[in-house]
Amino acid sequence: MKFFKYLAFIAFSISLNSQNVNDDLIFIDKIYDEALSNGNSYEWLDYLSNQIGGRLSGSINYDRSVKWGKEELEMIEIDSVWLQPVMIPKWVRGAPEYAHIESSPGNTISVPIAALGGSISTPSIGISANVIEVKSFEELKKIGMDSIKGKIVFYNRPMDPTLINTFQAYSGSVNQRTQGAIEAAKLGAIGVIVRSMTTSLDDYPHTGSMYYDGISLNERIPAAAISTNGAELLSSMLSLNSKIKFFFRQNSKNFPDVISHNVVGQINGSLKPDEIIVIGGHLDSWDLGDGSHDDGSGIVQSMEVLRILKSLNYKPKRTIRVVLFANEENGLRGGDKYAQESKLNKEKHFFALESDAGGFTPRGFSFDTSNKEFKSIKEFESLFTKYGMNNFFMGGSGADIGPLKDGKVILAGLRPDTQRYFDYHHAASDTFDKINKRELELGAAAMTALVYLLDNYKL
Amino acid sequence: MKFFKYLAFIAFSISLNSQNVNDDLIFIDKIYDEALSNGNSYEWLDYLSNQIGGRLSGSINYDRSVKWGKEELEMIEIDSVWLQPVMIPKWVRGAPEYAHIESSPGNTISVPIAALGGSISTPSIGISANVIEVKSFEELKKIGMDSIKGKIVFYNRPMDPTLINTFQAYSGSVNQRTQGAIEAAKLGAIGVIVRSMTTSLDDYPHTGSMYYDGISLNERIPAAAISTNGAELLSSMLSLNSKIKFFFRQNSKNFPDVISHNVVGQINGSLKPDEIIVIGGHLDSWDLGDGSHDDGSGIVQSMEVLRILKSLNYKPKRTIRVVLFANEENGLRGGDKYAQESKLNKEKHFFALESDAGGFTPRGFSFDTSNKEFKSIKEFESLFTKYGMNNFFMGGSGADIGPLKDGKVILAGLRPDTQRYFDYHHAASDTFDKINKRELELGAAAMTALVYLLDNYKL
Repeated sequence: MKFFKYLAFIAFSISLNSQNVNDDLIFIDKIYDEALSNGNSYEWLDYLSNQIGGRLSGSINYDRSVKWGKEELEMIEIDSVWLQPVMIPKWVRGAPEYAHIESSPGNTISVPIAALGGSISTPSIGISANVIEVKSFEELKKIGMDSIKGKIVFYNRPMDPTLINTFQAYSGSVNQRTQGAIEAAKLGAIGVIVRSMTTSLDDYPHTGSMYYDGISLNERIPAAAISTNGAELLSSMLSLNSKIKFFFRQNSKNFPDVISHNVVGQINGSLKPDEIIVIGGHLDSWDLGDGSHDDGSGIVQSMEVLRILKSLNYKPKRTIRVVLFANEENGLRGGDKYAQESKLNKEKHFFALESDAGGFTPRGFSFDTSNKEFKSIKEFESLFTKYGMNNFFMGGSGADIGPLKDGKVILAGLRPDTQRYFDYHHAASDTFDKINKRELELGAAAMTALVYLLDNYKL
Repeated sequence: MKFFKYLAFIAFSISLNSQNVNDDLIFIDKIYDEALSNGNSYEWLDYLSNQIGGRLSGSINYDRSVKWGKEELEMIEIDSVWLQPVMIPKWVRGAPEYAHIESSPGNTISVPIAALGGSISTPSIGISANVIEVKSFEELKKIGMDSIKGKIVFYNRPMDPTLINTFQAYSGSVNQRTQGAIEAAKLGAIGVIVRSMTTSLDDYPHTGSMYYDGISLNERIPAAAISTNGAELLSSMLSLNSKIKFFFRQNSKNFPDVISHNVVGQINGSLKPDEIIVIGGHLDSWDLGDGSHDDGSGIVQSMEVLRILKSLNYKPKRTIRVVLFANEENGLRGGDKYAQESKLNKEKHFFALESDAGGFTPRGFSFDTSNKEFKSIKEFESLFTKYGMNNFFMGGSGADIGPLKDGKVILAGLRPDTQRYFDYHHAASDTFDKINKRELELGAAAMTALVYLLDNYKL
């Protein structure tokens, strides 16, 4: 078992079979050299972001990105590339969106908003009402229906800045966005405004998915994100005068599902072709920015894994497959479809790795597997120290590969530095100029190295 | 010795005196909470960068920054704040700078250049000559005086992109900038063009210091940085036609030294006031950008250490001093002066910590001390893991605190992520918009925590 050779090498600086171990260490060095010297991820992302741009499910841009992904994978001459059909939702923002605070009749201050994904439209003349500001659903319930009926509920619980991992802070606040409309509608509110999910104070509304689970069509109320600066302004004005009104207008629409595709490509395994290693990210993005970090980075890094292995003339033992998943943002239909088809075809997935946390300096990998398996894999961790990352931990993997979970497949996620991610997340500021070429390339290299190690693991 | 209490706590999860250890762990948490919730470093840097801007030694802006630094330190009500006079060099870029490639008589393509700091001017009508492109001094010497005489030498060895730590890559290339003019002048060149010190391909010339050591005034030749895109263009045109000419014109001037200041402030120690812990960065910057990363970040982080300790009502055992050093970029006169004065006054420095590697996510600290001392201090490393950094290593500290080295003082440097640093280093792109608030604050928190630990170390 190759893995134990590493262990011996690391722990005792000797090896039972040092020739092979050294070959492996040299190969990982080659992976990094290739990624940093001849990498193609940055150039790919430049095209995806700047020539295609935002690519929400159901949009023409999404279909353009499918075509692009397929063509680019064909260019690197892997064994096969195909499209996997999948029905995806189509929600369209419509324009223009507009909001203002009315401090006294006729005195208004515009604030930036963006409809949350999935939200219904306001009436074409907009909504104007008094505002109830809350920090939690508990607070909302305490205030009660009598005070909330006919009002706009303003959720204003910030992400906790003291949490070092910003994804934790996001988790602690995002229910306002996903569930806020339901909870407010139940108490008679006519609309919902949600503080953007970012710790930064800026003028960008950050959109994202919201749900109406279990609420009938006529009970649904429109929901919008407000920029953090807008939220601060609204809150301070409310503290001075609780009678001020808020106005917003949006034109979003839900359409019937449309057909689109996951993009799939693979290099066939030479020794165990039936054991699949899948790498991926999601090809769709929100519509406001160009989706460079969420998740253009994961897409091009995943493609780069195959390109690097090809360029180094590596013959994988297992089948190595890249999937550019459809519709992560507002449905997860791509990930669900891929797992369903895989089950139907009795495919065996050995390892699945997703990159969907931005193209920042990679800091480690999170794993979703048994404790026993994790303990074994964690022995690879020290191999990454010289490349500036050394944190393998048990935790989530990625939304798109989640449906593959069956108790056997080893799931993992690339974990980049989290500090900047929510500055751009789901906002118009998620654009290519926020990408650092080396950070992106280091992520692709780390993924390739892990795929290489797992390809040779347990043979 | 408090240090051993940590050791016990970490290694065995028990402690001889768990009450104190817990108090310390709680205090470090408070430091991070304060830095991330009420931090002032970002606001300070906004002013220093956007209201003052680039502040080269000897400029009016440098003196403005001295005034600002003193006033802001006085505002946080530490025990004393003073200015330490120091004579600093005054080099002025002059304007305009201009360069072009002349592919055939009359056909020119402009390329971005910037005089290297300390360079003499060209004649007012500029210099035009054939170009000798080299990658190293060895290559230059091999070409020899006969071929070089009367030409412009073009140093075009890129920073090695495969080195993970970009500072290593910088070290491997920067002699072209610092020594290139001397070496070329010895062989009769009339000017020097140096590829900018960055792995990124962009249109910014990156300036930086260069030296004429040992060359008489009349033998000196002008030297300029060319953007990496400009370097690539020039190189590819030379490969097609070695007879093309390069023209550049610059107006830089050296003036007699002027008087300016280090800014110093301190909180007096309660137990060992004669043992000084010094924290600092350099207040001067190059003139092209606003010096946000180099080294505005280090300045505001160092000031923030004292502000955080004050706001948490911490009474240091040793004297904790901040120094905003003058003239790191082109002389190190501030650091030298501080160390001289310290020696004259028989001050005893216990610990010195510098931040001068950009305001990026902190990854660790480097130490310059005895192996024995380092081994002891390294036991603190694991305390930082929960804050996303865990790399204490032996290495350099900081240029400004280097002159304090006496075999006794423990020297250290904050080590942030290095991937983006040279995108902005010494270029017009080193501006406040490249700063992420949380990354900056995490650096200040890490510095404060280390200062706190060292304040209680070996008591």
